[in-house]
Amino acid sequence: MESLYIIKIGGNVIDNSESLHRFLEAFTKLKGHKILVHGGGKVATQLGETLGIEAKMVDGRRITDIETLRVVTMVYGGLINKNIVAQLQRYGTNAIGLTGADGNFIKARKRPVKTIDYGFVGDIDDDSVNAKGISALLDAGFTPVFSALTHDGEGQMLNTNADTIASALAVGLSGLYKTTLIYCFEKKGVLKDIDDEDSLIREINPERYDELKTAGIIHSGMLPKLDNAFKAIGFGVQAVIIGHADDLGKLGDGASFGTRLSN
Amino acid sequence: MESLYIIKIGGNVIDNSESLHRFLEAFTKLKGHKILVHGGGKVATQLGETLGIEAKMVDGRRITDIETLRVVTMVYGGLINKNIVAQLQRYGTNAIGLTGADGNFIKARKRPVKTIDYGFVGDIDDDSVNAKGISALLDAGFTPVFSALTHDGEGQMLNTNADTIASALAVGLSGLYKTTLIYCFEKKGVLKDIDDEDSLIREINPERYDELKTAGIIHSGMLPKLDNAFKAIGFGVQAVIIGHADDLGKLGDGASFGTRLSN
Repeated sequence: MESLYIIKIGGNVIDNSESLHRFLEAFTKLKGHKILVHGGGKVATQLGETLGIEAKMVDGRRITDIETLRVVTMVYGGLINKNIVAQLQRYGTNAIGLTGADGNFIKARKRPVKTIDYGFVGDIDDDSVNAKGISALLDAGFTPVFSALTHDGEGQMLNTNADTIASALAVGLSGLYKTTLIYCFEKKGVLKDIDDEDSLIREINPERYDELKTAGIIHSGMLPKLDNAFKAIGFGVQAVIIGHADDLGKLGDGASFGTRLSN
Repeated sequence: MESLYIIKIGGNVIDNSESLHRFLEAFTKLKGHKILVHGGGKVATQLGETLGIEAKMVDGRRITDIETLRVVTMVYGGLINKNIVAQLQRYGTNAIGLTGADGNFIKARKRPVKTIDYGFVGDIDDDSVNAKGISALLDAGFTPVFSALTHDGEGQMLNTNADTIASALAVGLSGLYKTTLIYCFEKKGVLKDIDDEDSLIREINPERYDELKTAGIIHSGMLPKLDNAFKAIGFGVQAVIIGHADDLGKLGDGASFGTRLSN
């Protein structure tokens, strides 16, 4: 099986032009098949504010009403996605910008209303990812760039968390490729001491993960991230790497990058 | 050679939800390879107004300053493009939404400043269209949906007229496919009497075109449209059809649709 990197970047990279360019250059240098997944950033929030659309949050999650869906479709699917694609083309990556609607690549289900109506938010199922379709693109020499948007197959665009999309792609494509899922965030990786960037933990397997949790070294915000990472590994993903976008270049150089989670 | 339809729709279809759905259904029923090209519509103008960006026109042409470019990248490349793709997927067309930056499919040149600075407007060259790349997508079973955006290959998105993009695609792909270029507009086709929709001229070849011009039947606004159409035919396009979007279904039924221009 060929290798495939699925790399997710968030607002902290997108909002900083220098970081973004450094990242896109390093991304271009990575050999082999790769997929980029990006979230939003300040631009969506700012545009929403300018248009008088209030960001509605419940329990830290954005409520996607129809006006917010329009904004994210414009900003994620248009402005950010196409500018990243144009930059990647400049660096020599044959990028193609996508949402889950394109090629029916990621079909989601509008989140059912229980106590909270999240609006036009798409949840991912086991069979959401159209692995064959995405593979056809990869085989034709294209590098997909996914924004955090899906569709329901009935004509409705939906907003889906970029971390979730990246993970679903890595799992969904693990039957066809040796997939490595990479989350770029604002730290060098999983740190023993959150205030010390030199305390990076380079490798974590499930046993070590249990030890780190028991010792209280990994806690709070990192727990769901790592739980989801090990879940993806359980579903066939080769490894999950969590690291700083600025360090992606090390991966191309064969050096170690961030924290590597694997079985 | 296989056949390929390149079909352009404008604001009059996009702005009318009923027209759009009727069109997308007819588009889906068309057999064989096809490409959709869409322009903007009222949404871009409205969003620009809400954001306080004044639409700047010189000689009937939109000046694309950086703020306007952001708006059209959001609206054409995001909102309109992705909603059309999601609708087409619902109807069963395996659409994939694109700009010229994606796959480096259409590389344009920023219009040089002479007397007027048009801003971020992309002009098309003979070698702008990446026919091989687009053909790879078509062969993989995708139906490309292009918005009126290109790039310069140096990381800059550009705004390019949708009619021009459609024509460039038809010419550029005519070496690989028997291309038919279809312009959908608000009339049934070329009319003998502009106020009489029953006065449709069904076929025009270059000789007949000269006669119609000499007789003063074709004049003013239709002249550049038809001149460009015959230019495209001169460059290898099999036929150009000009007709009403509502009538596209007739083409799938094998009936005559609009005005057919050919050699």
